[in-house]
Amino acid sequence: MTPGTIDRVLSSANADMSQAIAAWSAFLRIPSISAQPAHAADCRRAAAWARERLAALGFDATLHETAGHPVVLAQHPGPGGDAPHLLYYGHYDVQPPEPLELWPSPPFTPTIVDGPRGKRMVARGAVDDKGQVAAWLGAFAAWHATTGGLPVRLTVLLEGEEEIGSPHLEPFLLAERARLTADAAVISDTNLWDFATPAITTGLRGLLYVEIRAQAATRDLHSGLFGGVACNPINELVQALGALRDGAGRVQIPGFYEGVAPLSPERAAQWAALGLDTGAFLGGVGLTTPAGEAGRGVLERLWARPTADLNGIWGGYAGPGAKTVIPAEAGAKISFRLVPGQNPEAIFAAFRAFMAARVHPDLKLEFTSFGAAPGIDVPTDLPVVAAARQALAEEFSRRPVMIGCGASIPVVESLHRVLGLSTLLMGFGLDDDQIHSPGEKFEITCFERGLRSHIRLLGHLGA
Amino acid sequence: MTPGTIDRVLSSANADMSQAIAAWSAFLRIPSISAQPAHAADCRRAAAWARERLAALGFDATLHETAGHPVVLAQHPGPGGDAPHLLYYGHYDVQPPEPLELWPSPPFTPTIVDGPRGKRMVARGAVDDKGQVAAWLGAFAAWHATTGGLPVRLTVLLEGEEEIGSPHLEPFLLAERARLTADAAVISDTNLWDFATPAITTGLRGLLYVEIRAQAATRDLHSGLFGGVACNPINELVQALGALRDGAGRVQIPGFYEGVAPLSPERAAQWAALGLDTGAFLGGVGLTTPAGEAGRGVLERLWARPTADLNGIWGGYAGPGAKTVIPAEAGAKISFRLVPGQNPEAIFAAFRAFMAARVHPDLKLEFTSFGAAPGIDVPTDLPVVAAARQALAEEFSRRPVMIGCGASIPVVESLHRVLGLSTLLMGFGLDDDQIHSPGEKFEITCFERGLRSHIRLLGHLGA
Repeated sequence: MTPGTIDRVLSSANADMSQAIAAWSAFLRIPSISAQPAHAADCRRAAAWARERLAALGFDATLHETAGHPVVLAQHPGPGGDAPHLLYYGHYDVQPPEPLELWPSPPFTPTIVDGPRGKRMVARGAVDDKGQVAAWLGAFAAWHATTGGLPVRLTVLLEGEEEIGSPHLEPFLLAERARLTADAAVISDTNLWDFATPAITTGLRGLLYVEIRAQAATRDLHSGLFGGVACNPINELVQALGALRDGAGRVQIPGFYEGVAPLSPERAAQWAALGLDTGAFLGGVGLTTPAGEAGRGVLERLWARPTADLNGIWGGYAGPGAKTVIPAEAGAKISFRLVPGQNPEAIFAAFRAFMAARVHPDLKLEFTSFGAAPGIDVPTDLPVVAAARQALAEEFSRRPVMIGCGASIPVVESLHRVLGLSTLLMGFGLDDDQIHSPGEKFEITCFERGLRSHIRLLGHLGA
Repeated sequence: MTPGTIDRVLSSANADMSQAIAAWSAFLRIPSISAQPAHAADCRRAAAWARERLAALGFDATLHETAGHPVVLAQHPGPGGDAPHLLYYGHYDVQPPEPLELWPSPPFTPTIVDGPRGKRMVARGAVDDKGQVAAWLGAFAAWHATTGGLPVRLTVLLEGEEEIGSPHLEPFLLAERARLTADAAVISDTNLWDFATPAITTGLRGLLYVEIRAQAATRDLHSGLFGGVACNPINELVQALGALRDGAGRVQIPGFYEGVAPLSPERAAQWAALGLDTGAFLGGVGLTTPAGEAGRGVLERLWARPTADLNGIWGGYAGPGAKTVIPAEAGAKISFRLVPGQNPEAIFAAFRAFMAARVHPDLKLEFTSFGAAPGIDVPTDLPVVAAARQALAEEFSRRPVMIGCGASIPVVESLHRVLGLSTLLMGFGLDDDQIHSPGEKFEITCFERGLRSHIRLLGHLGA
């Protein structure tokens, strides 16, 4: 690459920005709602739209059928040879737009309006994930227009079922494993730290989600006639689940913290430097005081510590007034957020044993797991991370912050397990973008900065 | 009373038994469902039917209006003077009959069918409480036909809202207190020990019923983004409620057992003599092992020990699959069965303090009490109890057993508190009578034995 190439590509991108935004709008106009069978044809249209766009930019682009919505797979040789090889993953499907009456404009009529940070695009998928995909497409287009190609080898994988749990992605990855080799992956489905501060997410928590069903008597009993003698499933569940944490918030399942590393001084320093305003963070949802493990920072609790949270509980009478029933059954849903080093299967087994040891012999317990994925750390010494740091620092005139994420992005775990790829997580959304809600938006400035950051990243990685 | 009077009344009753059963049937034909506003006129019809029947038997009988269904109040001077004065309480309302498709015959078409213990009456209210009321009316009729009067002064009080919690009974008792003097009360709304063995219930547990609502954040939160830091109302409720009992089943609320007397040797002996088959009792509902307080007998746990039972719990996601929500709210319903000596208001206050001391500062707790009544012991040295023992022993050729009851009969507490009356609890139902369920029945033999026991009781009390 001759010196100044990146600058020429950026100039081209700036000159053609209205075309990139027009392409983004065209993509948003297709109601590719993966959850709704009536929109299956629209999902296919969105996939076809993306495939054509990639083909026009020099990719060998194809649609791959699955048992659900198709996968777009596109490959670009870049400069060829042993140039760095990046796999970009995105998704073309969107969440259902309902309730429609809360939208300021129709969800599939992309509308640019003024906001406190300049213009913004309002539409379902504005940011999640069509907007972030469109920023990548814009970056490819600028490189293509300026240099006739790309500075790295690139594989693009766009799925159409991310919003429904990616049921057919893993079979696809397994089947196409040989064609999906790369040096690293990149996903833009996360947020900036704030409008002015770019972020790279270097860790994701995993998840073990368990449903428990507890059954005792063969029918509901009257608590006057049986109370004091009959095994009560709610009493039993509550007593056992109530023992899950000690007074300091530590989970009491034997072996739960096995393999959990202490927070590294490097991360502790990175996170302390973020200067999180805890009061504002909690105050935004009506809270004042951090819960969870005593004696640890808020970001450590959110990003680096495992949890046990009851997500649902039910049993007996929940209507108005009094009913003195000892119910036959009760149940609960519990999720464990996991961190690297924890083994989800071992924790599931230990949790079952923990519960079984604490309940009355007449209580029959049934456990169902709805997913068990380990926590993941993204190595920060990868060439793609170095390129991203440089790209973001140049684009934002501010060094990116290295952050964690308390949630899971299951595809990151799949890419690692099936393809052996580490994933750079670099996104351009904001916390107030209202993804999954009415009025979803993406700031035009964030879109443009994302597009230009991608141009820079490709340039630095290929240099 | 001349010797042999009781025998003559019994002969008359036996001769007229078909008329007593016909009157019972007529009473059952009126669908006096207190819970259903469409049946308000039927409730009034049932009240009017009972009033007329009592008036025809020499009672001064009137309907008293309440804010709900009317009360039947009927008074008979008996032999006058300072003859013993008994107050009989019953109720003319019934539970809704639904689900109708499970009835073997229409619920308000009284039908006599054969069963393993002879003929039985099948109808809604067959036993609860119209059948037991009709047995008393039959006893009054036999005395009236034979002697032209009654051997004791008698006040009859029939309410029409027992099945909906008697909301207007206490205002009525307070307003008519002066006219409701008596030496003791009698209620027949309980069961025999078994088909061959009569029973007098000498104790009732009280009840404190509390609903708890717990609220933390202003909206539901994502457990990936907030888990480990946000106060989770289900976690908090479960942790606090899970601490309610120790490993031996003892309730941990400070002061909970204050005032609770140890089981008296007399009662312990009475209950041991009952020879309860614990395996059959629990096995009937699919259980094997008594729950509750370790180291105490099953009948002591049921009749003489207080409890804490969760009757309902709710919060978060209860649908299929996984939803990683930290809900804004959760709630529970809990009932404490109380025994004599415990103060319901003090326990309510101690429970609130127990909970408040155990939850996160961001959890707002709201407590609602749906009733607080103390446990009650019926003195066994009353003349009416002596008369009942004799009456039952003669009728069944077997001495009655003295039993407890784990449930509450709130009117017993009202009669005691407002009118100063102790209540004899002597009923003729069986455990398999299916009260409140489809197919409710009353054995004809039980009805007849009840009617004759009432005749004997009135005779012995008036002697």
